Amino acid sequence: MAKFLTNRDENYAQWYNDLVIKADLAENSAVRGCMVIKPYGYAIWEKIQAELDKMFKATGHVNAYFPIFIPKSFFSKEAKHVEGFAKECAIVTHYRLKKDENGGGIIVDPSAKLEEELIIRPTSETIIWNSYKNWIHSYRDLPILINQWCNVVRWEMRTRLFLRTSEFLWQEGHTAHATREEAIEETEKMINVYSEFAQNFMALPVIKGYKSETERFAGAIDTYAIEAIMQDGKALQAGTSHFLGQNFAKAFDVQFTDKNGKLDYVWATSWGLSTRMIGALIMAHSDNKGLVLPPRLAPIQVIIVPIFKNAEQLARISETVNKIKPDLQAKGISVKYDDRDNNTPGWKYADYELKGVPVRLAIGPRDIEQGTVEVARRDTLEKTSIPVNNITDHILTLLDDIQKNIYVKAAEFKKANTFYVDKWDEFVNILDNQGGFIMAHWDGTAETEEKIKNETKATIRCIPFESPEEDGKCIYSGKPSKRRVLFARSY
Amino acid sequence: MAKFLTNRDENYAQWYNDLVIKADLAENSAVRGCMVIKPYGYAIWEKIQAELDKMFKATGHVNAYFPIFIPKSFFSKEAKHVEGFAKECAIVTHYRLKKDENGGGIIVDPSAKLEEELIIRPTSETIIWNSYKNWIHSYRDLPILINQWCNVVRWEMRTRLFLRTSEFLWQEGHTAHATREEAIEETEKMINVYSEFAQNFMALPVIKGYKSETERFAGAIDTYAIEAIMQDGKALQAGTSHFLGQNFAKAFDVQFTDKNGKLDYVWATSWGLSTRMIGALIMAHSDNKGLVLPPRLAPIQVIIVPIFKNAEQLARISETVNKIKPDLQAKGISVKYDDRDNNTPGWKYADYELKGVPVRLAIGPRDIEQGTVEVARRDTLEKTSIPVNNITDHILTLLDDIQKNIYVKAAEFKKANTFYVDKWDEFVNILDNQGGFIMAHWDGTAETEEKIKNETKATIRCIPFESPEEDGKCIYSGKPSKRRVLFARSY
Repeated sequence: MAKFLTNRDENYAQWYNDLVIKADLAENSAVRGCMVIKPYGYAIWEKIQAELDKMFKATGHVNAYFPIFIPKSFFSKEAKHVEGFAKECAIVTHYRLKKDENGGGIIVDPSAKLEEELIIRPTSETIIWNSYKNWIHSYRDLPILINQWCNVVRWEMRTRLFLRTSEFLWQEGHTAHATREEAIEETEKMINVYSEFAQNFMALPVIKGYKSETERFAGAIDTYAIEAIMQDGKALQAGTSHFLGQNFAKAFDVQFTDKNGKLDYVWATSWGLSTRMIGALIMAHSDNKGLVLPPRLAPIQVIIVPIFKNAEQLARISETVNKIKPDLQAKGISVKYDDRDNNTPGWKYADYELKGVPVRLAIGPRDIEQGTVEVARRDTLEKTSIPVNNITDHILTLLDDIQKNIYVKAAEFKKANTFYVDKWDEFVNILDNQGGFIMAHWDGTAETEEKIKNETKATIRCIPFESPEEDGKCIYSGKPSKRRVLFARSY
Repeated sequence: MAKFLTNRDENYAQWYNDLVIKADLAENSAVRGCMVIKPYGYAIWEKIQAELDKMFKATGHVNAYFPIFIPKSFFSKEAKHVEGFAKECAIVTHYRLKKDENGGGIIVDPSAKLEEELIIRPTSETIIWNSYKNWIHSYRDLPILINQWCNVVRWEMRTRLFLRTSEFLWQEGHTAHATREEAIEETEKMINVYSEFAQNFMALPVIKGYKSETERFAGAIDTYAIEAIMQDGKALQAGTSHFLGQNFAKAFDVQFTDKNGKLDYVWATSWGLSTRMIGALIMAHSDNKGLVLPPRLAPIQVIIVPIFKNAEQLARISETVNKIKPDLQAKGISVKYDDRDNNTPGWKYADYELKGVPVRLAIGPRDIEQGTVEVARRDTLEKTSIPVNNITDHILTLLDDIQKNIYVKAAEFKKANTFYVDKWDEFVNILDNQGGFIMAHWDGTAETEEKIKNETKATIRCIPFESPEEDGKCIYSGKPSKRRVLFARSY
């Protein structure tokens, strides 16, 4: 299995594609740009959903569901919003098929043309704010803290599994507030939720910051993002939270009576995280043997492989496994026992390494005699022999260790590949030869930003919250600058 | 609140609509036929999802995700399938909007016309079997036991919240098997899962049976359904499981090598249950005061209302509540404490009755003195005073009692409204005057079935699995019949 994986250091892009396909995570479908998320890939998404959903609910949010269709006229109500999304949308124009009278099979019935075309949601601000209009009258109706789990469609021309697909799954939070301050607080709270999720579950160190005006969400006053570094030195935006000001409230005329009886427009935020994160998870941690999954998001945390030559040996091993397995499960660990006899242990080892299962237990006749189990960890590939009666505690600790170790490794990689650069030659040189995060001064203009992008393909990933004030000169124009921003090539 | 609900016995349809809106479950959206599922309604769906998903996984199924778009040509590959679904589908024909050069705002860009139109899935057999084609080569690749949670679109002309909407949420299982027997076993297994779910969680007694040929899923060899009775005597189909034979395997050329090395087409099933079930839940149990939710699907199981005249009283009550609430939560009970001071206790009582919260605890100053809590159950509206130190055990038992009682009440209603009828006059009379389930003989022809439908609006809901063999004469044609079938008017 794993030997068919392209070498990561030779061709990172091909390695990624190979891995997604061979680890059975997803595949391209017959519909251009749309993927099939296969059971193993979807199981990772279910883990992501479960953890995020808990975090959203713990911060006071509830889930709801709004229509997938957005009337074309809604779409146009916020000027920048339509500009940002009109170029890549799927449009429903008819609602019936019929038999071709000329024998050409099934055709679109021209008499079933919609009066107004419907856009498949690329994001739901417009349809949601059109609903909020009827829900909000007084400050007592605020805040509204709603999240939606759903599919969205953006008609991408160049697609890659998980990273950029025409249809993807995500969650989108849409909140409504009585004051500007409260909305900004919510925007910050949610970028922090994303950042905690990335660090604690995805084992992904991220940089939090503001987007430049050019990179902002279409319709936002301010966009906060978390940016992660992949093993090829490129950045990946791993979640965004938008302060929308009163833009959508004004577009949909959503006013409320405040505590003093004064009418005002409602303040808004939106925030989203998508199946793209599975791409980040793969690219940040995996190696030439396959996936490396952080235990907290691994669909299978422990795989047990029996080493046997005959049915009698298997029976004795299974007896031991049937004691170990329920103990592990009782501690909330997901365990699979692969006792199939049509594959060799070696084949199974390679397959579960490819699939990134954090811990492998191997049990053979000698282990049974000696009361031991061979424990292999996926992240370091180390093997040790452990007394079987101590296995549950050992594995609980080991899973924590692996989770931490994957994070530490990624954090060290990020540190080693973050460069403070003050000269243009060095800036270009790093991007062309090794990649990475570049902290450099910028004069704050969209013009310079665009020139840098055109010359190097690097964009401003964010203006980090934690970037200290510091006098400097723009890396490109030499004009004065007050703080460094984060540049990188990105996915 | 509740007083604005239309009386259930005067106008059942209006009562239902009022209830859905006033209990904040859902509302119509700006998009014709599409609903907004509001947080309280969606919370019920989340409960349904969680329980069903557990049952699916316990029976060996895994989740995955397939594209929302189905190429028009796929749709046509199974002849009956396209006939059943072509009349009510949403069709994507373009992928870009642009500014009208004549100043007419945003228009569909005519140059962005798709070569082949895409249908928004009304159900996913075709796109899924097109994928399975590449996944299945040998009997070793079988069975495939996949479920998908998603949205689907059927362009309905007459819609009602939850019961019939153009877009709805559902799960659809799609399984592939090596033998006919295995596929039939799966079809039966899943109708049993639905039936257990309906009875144990929705408190809904159902009748399991076969659909007549006329009522079968488009493309199925056999459709099994569960049918429930609503309080107006109409039937509601609450889940279907289809034995698809080799129809889709043949349409998409999905063959496998069996154990003997022989090529054969793969056997299939599909099965689905949708947000329609929320409609069934409402219509089966609720009353003139509002929703009656079975505790196992209630988003809030216990509401605590303080009775106070001043802040000091509230503080003392809150002290007690802060002891009770964590105990209840520790037992897995979802509890809400409504200490808002802008509504009276009476207003709150009515509101939580409207919302169907199974148990209400009211605590006033006298309760604090006496160490008691007033416990009211939503199903019977009975109130009792219970010692506060015994409250957790009491509520655990009470929630079970309520769950059982709602089921028993529904089962008694079903029994009282199921009629064994042998005369046409009586058949028509029951349908016109009281409604209900009618068990009657039928000659087995689609012709008679259609005549009965045209004359009475009643259809064959199912041929119950448990209908015993019995000689009789068709209620309409008088021709010989071997067993009774279930007739009813239906949603």
